[in-house]
Amino acid sequence: MHNEKLQDVGEFGLIRRIQRQVGGGDHLVLGIGDDCSIQRQDNSWELLTSTDLLIEGVHFNRQWISMEELGRKSAAVNISDIAAMGGRPKSLFLGVACPGDIPVDELESFSRGFVAETNAYDAVLAGGDTCRSLGPLMISVTVQGEVESGRAIRRDGAEVGDAIYVSGTLGDSALALQQLLAGKQPNRYLLARHNTPTARVALGRRLVQEQLASSMLDVSDGILSDLGHILEASGVGAEIELARLPLSDEFRAALQQDGSLLDLALAGGEDYELLLTSPLKNLSEKTLSSVDLTRIGTICSQPGLQVKNQDGSLYRCSRGGFDHFG
Amino acid sequence: MHNEKLQDVGEFGLIRRIQRQVGGGDHLVLGIGDDCSIQRQDNSWELLTSTDLLIEGVHFNRQWISMEELGRKSAAVNISDIAAMGGRPKSLFLGVACPGDIPVDELESFSRGFVAETNAYDAVLAGGDTCRSLGPLMISVTVQGEVESGRAIRRDGAEVGDAIYVSGTLGDSALALQQLLAGKQPNRYLLARHNTPTARVALGRRLVQEQLASSMLDVSDGILSDLGHILEASGVGAEIELARLPLSDEFRAALQQDGSLLDLALAGGEDYELLLTSPLKNLSEKTLSSVDLTRIGTICSQPGLQVKNQDGSLYRCSRGGFDHFG
Repeated sequence: MHNEKLQDVGEFGLIRRIQRQVGGGDHLVLGIGDDCSIQRQDNSWELLTSTDLLIEGVHFNRQWISMEELGRKSAAVNISDIAAMGGRPKSLFLGVACPGDIPVDELESFSRGFVAETNAYDAVLAGGDTCRSLGPLMISVTVQGEVESGRAIRRDGAEVGDAIYVSGTLGDSALALQQLLAGKQPNRYLLARHNTPTARVALGRRLVQEQLASSMLDVSDGILSDLGHILEASGVGAEIELARLPLSDEFRAALQQDGSLLDLALAGGEDYELLLTSPLKNLSEKTLSSVDLTRIGTICSQPGLQVKNQDGSLYRCSRGGFDHFG
Repeated sequence: MHNEKLQDVGEFGLIRRIQRQVGGGDHLVLGIGDDCSIQRQDNSWELLTSTDLLIEGVHFNRQWISMEELGRKSAAVNISDIAAMGGRPKSLFLGVACPGDIPVDELESFSRGFVAETNAYDAVLAGGDTCRSLGPLMISVTVQGEVESGRAIRRDGAEVGDAIYVSGTLGDSALALQQLLAGKQPNRYLLARHNTPTARVALGRRLVQEQLASSMLDVSDGILSDLGHILEASGVGAEIELARLPLSDEFRAALQQDGSLLDLALAGGEDYELLLTSPLKNLSEKTLSSVDLTRIGTICSQPGLQVKNQDGSLYRCSRGGFDHFG
């Protein structure tokens, strides 16, 4: 169709069209469509790779985040894709297209934050590219990691009856962003959740080593949208119990003022928590993780995703998942 | 120093500052500063990785290149970094930040070109990221390849007495760009050299397999600048003979009209030919390559890079190498 616009097709529609053009390769275990691609490496390990773009005015606003924090976030959100398959990150590659008005010491703050965050996950900055931008600041990050052969936790393994878990708390980052957009200053906790998220690498590793999860991804677009990817890839449906969503004290306090904020926990985005399914009903005891795991629902055979109120009635979220072309 | 600007420090100055912040890793054979990073993979092979940015208004102008050609070029210039170390490309990762005014069929043309070019080198598109751009079209590409362990041809191996070779012809791409900038239509050959360059993968492989080269890189910023990188990394100097520069018939025809164009062959950029050093004086006979190799000079102990006229006098190039922040 001629003159079809991006917003008509959507981010995932475009990705599907590109997928159709692409063939496979013998070395490629898994290509486009999961958190990372998987490639054969040697007998024991597979290579995981993921690439992310962070564009000024789309993903961040320099008014609201320091360059050092932006460096940290750029590394963490990319490493989160390795965590989402249960791998360990090894090497990061950084591309920066930079407007001429950013002073060099600011760029050094950015790379200092990027390197510090990378090293905190036992990975290294191994290469990159820099150039001038006539428009916004644009950052591209590629991460390589590794996972025991055949053990990567993909999106397509959820089975009927599996419990659905999510790590940490939901909605904090989206609430901070909403406050910033409204001209309010979020409190320290919420702002940190937005500007310096944590990749759940240790939890992902534990889930792989103990083979505890049947499917997993990281929550970047909100659990409604992201759980949708698991359901689609696995050919199943799900029920989520609204009362079980893990919320921080800070988020609950805001929710008491405005009940509609609950939708930020469902469809806000940028949580970078792990969302996973498991045949086990007591997973939290098994993972010994420093971050909480909360059971929020169940995989079922009926297609679609239902969010249930405590009385069993259906909850209707006012927001869709985040689509970059929406 | 506060408020130092990018153009004061330059692209390579910024990279050096970032390099100082970065530590190494056990798995990392070679980090920032060559065409690719090198990582241990298994006993026989090492993993090569390189990342490139292509920014509208900086690296390309959509008036002068079709989206399909842009897709081909985006893959080829990145694969050229694998060729520059003698590796074979395996997997590419593509990030596209896209302005809303580009129709979907144009984006599909772009990805069709990218996939076709990738497959032409026996590699696959293995992953990516797409998002909206409020500014220009921005493309990031990361390529992974492999090379026999310990055999990658780096920048730091040139030795005094080595001959200097370059593949193909120089200056064609820069001449096409200069004509486009002046509002003239380049002929078909020159335009193709600018819009759809070829990565010299087969030649690079042959040089590795026969262990024929002591140092190598691909010419992206012009041979003066790029040979400078080899000299700096290897701690040597070089003499180039101007009369030996390989020039196409099309370039020679333009040169007859305007002698100053010769500087485009020295410092124009975007040739994507291989520039290499070798102890062998008859390398062309050994490589059996479909692309010509021309001997253009000699590595010497005296520091610096001298370009000599046929009468032995020094030639002075009016252009420096290309610096993205210059």
